[in-house]
Amino acid sequence: MIYLDNAASTWPKPPEVAEAMLQVMREFAANPGRSGHRLALQAAATIEQTRTRLAKLFHVKNPNDVIFTQNATESINLGLKGYLKPGDHVVTTSLEHNSVRRPLEFLRQNGIDVTYVTVSDSDDSLLRDVEESFRKNTKLLVVTHASNLTGRILPIEQLGWIARRHNVKFMVDASQTAGFWPIDVEAMNIDLLAFPGHKSLYGPQGTGGLYIHPELDLVPLLHGGTGGQSELAEQPPTRPDRYESGTRNTVGIAGLGAGLKFIEETGLETIRKHEEQLTRLLIEELSAIPGLALYGPDRDQPRCPVVSFSMEGYDANEVGFILDTHYQIAVRAGLHCSPLAHETVGTIRTGLVRASLGYFNTEQEIGELVRALKEIAG
Amino acid sequence: MIYLDNAASTWPKPPEVAEAMLQVMREFAANPGRSGHRLALQAAATIEQTRTRLAKLFHVKNPNDVIFTQNATESINLGLKGYLKPGDHVVTTSLEHNSVRRPLEFLRQNGIDVTYVTVSDSDDSLLRDVEESFRKNTKLLVVTHASNLTGRILPIEQLGWIARRHNVKFMVDASQTAGFWPIDVEAMNIDLLAFPGHKSLYGPQGTGGLYIHPELDLVPLLHGGTGGQSELAEQPPTRPDRYESGTRNTVGIAGLGAGLKFIEETGLETIRKHEEQLTRLLIEELSAIPGLALYGPDRDQPRCPVVSFSMEGYDANEVGFILDTHYQIAVRAGLHCSPLAHETVGTIRTGLVRASLGYFNTEQEIGELVRALKEIAG
Repeated sequence: MIYLDNAASTWPKPPEVAEAMLQVMREFAANPGRSGHRLALQAAATIEQTRTRLAKLFHVKNPNDVIFTQNATESINLGLKGYLKPGDHVVTTSLEHNSVRRPLEFLRQNGIDVTYVTVSDSDDSLLRDVEESFRKNTKLLVVTHASNLTGRILPIEQLGWIARRHNVKFMVDASQTAGFWPIDVEAMNIDLLAFPGHKSLYGPQGTGGLYIHPELDLVPLLHGGTGGQSELAEQPPTRPDRYESGTRNTVGIAGLGAGLKFIEETGLETIRKHEEQLTRLLIEELSAIPGLALYGPDRDQPRCPVVSFSMEGYDANEVGFILDTHYQIAVRAGLHCSPLAHETVGTIRTGLVRASLGYFNTEQEIGELVRALKEIAG
Repeated sequence: MIYLDNAASTWPKPPEVAEAMLQVMREFAANPGRSGHRLALQAAATIEQTRTRLAKLFHVKNPNDVIFTQNATESINLGLKGYLKPGDHVVTTSLEHNSVRRPLEFLRQNGIDVTYVTVSDSDDSLLRDVEESFRKNTKLLVVTHASNLTGRILPIEQLGWIARRHNVKFMVDASQTAGFWPIDVEAMNIDLLAFPGHKSLYGPQGTGGLYIHPELDLVPLLHGGTGGQSELAEQPPTRPDRYESGTRNTVGIAGLGAGLKFIEETGLETIRKHEEQLTRLLIEELSAIPGLALYGPDRDQPRCPVVSFSMEGYDANEVGFILDTHYQIAVRAGLHCSPLAHETVGTIRTGLVRASLGYFNTEQEIGELVRALKEIAG
């Protein structure tokens, strides 16, 4: 099986990830932070180690400002629902995943106003359009760092500066970039950074997180037991407890820690260069196939390792099905939970085929995909 | 290490649990329900198998009425915040964990009225007090099935009938009973059943669930990508998608499936009888230690395998510390995230020591704990 669906979930993971999880299951899967005995303390220490690694990766000073969630969707829901209040206005883009769009559409029914800025080809016009959409009551700018459909990477740093200048908080959905592209929450003026654990951070599913600027207080999404300050009837004010009610996913977080260690040891730049090289190769080869249309940014624009295309005479799902059953190649066909982005690109009715790469893909695998598509194109 | 903290998280798990997780990590940790290729379908099938096992265990007709969450706390938050509206009145008990109390205290600040019924020793007076607390605007009765502090099992079936008679919805927190005590949502008139995966269901941390009565529509806690019906701007109405936004914890849910299979094969009754026998033995032995005071229900009342006690001349944390460091016995000392229950019992200032048993504990281990406590008591 050739796995080219890494934007949905990376696979395989570095072997250390499963090993770390197995160790937790066998040696100390007790409840972290709930009891004082050594197994519980070991569980808690594992979680804090992973938190520290995340803080380092995103240049967060205090690891307690990084909250564990079950996935990026929960992180985004916590950020949006915890921060916005009726009467607020929020600005976002037409490239957003349903994980941003659907919470916003829900909030819109509850007295929050939403503007979707259509992302045009040039960064300059995007920056201008975002700035022009700000109003007096604009409280938040929320953007995806990179489109899960086209791979386009948005100019986060400049967007962060614009938001700062207008005293608007800035939230970034780093689902496609955390572990692939350097992210510095201070330099980029990011107030809320949502990320999944199971994509380019190479952790298992069931993990994710949210960085929350130390001066930002959110209404928690989950209220409940926090281990510490049990005597309070209210949610405790201290982080991370305030936002982490209920038993944490110790085994998953241990796996995420191993994924982060793998990234540290391999080097973010080494990972990115390998994936960029494969992406370039794939785009070059696909450009030469007749009847195959590529979507996404120009070659000189930054992009994450996602390549979407359509094939003349074929429905996207059909291509995905043939690749899976006949060639043992896993891609993702359809709408990718991003109908807004498909509307922007003009492919809402047909969907697209998406090949998304990870560090463990090889040139040979790219070659196999290209060979298969050439055969399909006939 | 003798592990007697199973009410916080069971440990060890049956070996099949880690094996099932390892298989997912190695063979198909793709994104369930997001793509059509075989790895994604295998991931989705694993999740649906576990869902079906849960439905069978709790006598739920349609597996899609069982929603996966990250822990019981999320399940309870989804149930309470998703169902109650400003102006509603909710009745609960004084034995609740912070996972019920804190969401209710939060809702109280948002126009929802809460009555805590003090749980007295007799079931009859509890039933009477609950019924008397109902008002015209009472919309929900939420109770813990068993106290995580005293082990007392509440008369769920009768409470369910009372709620039904008054047209009040009934929510049960089965954190201490799911996998230990038989639960039948139909026979018990349960509208919302919240449960953790990592306690007596022997799954890993990061798993939990909520049964939602088919006629009950909740506001989702998480809005976002659902794989299916991607084109909708709103959360889709179909279950389980409506309540399961974002990537599910495939690896954790596979482990939970293995835990459920273990329960099916071993038999719920075999598990319960073993744990009840150990609990009786422990209570008998502890009763004979001078200066040791036991808390909890009478011997003839049903209880889960939780035994809490205090020791004259010792702070609860001190006893926990000595047991851990000197005898390698893991118990939980303190407030157990249940200050309300401690207030009810009268131990809010001192806390208690809690030994909680699981299927893998043995008579010999009980003997070791008793011997240690005798030495401590001097």
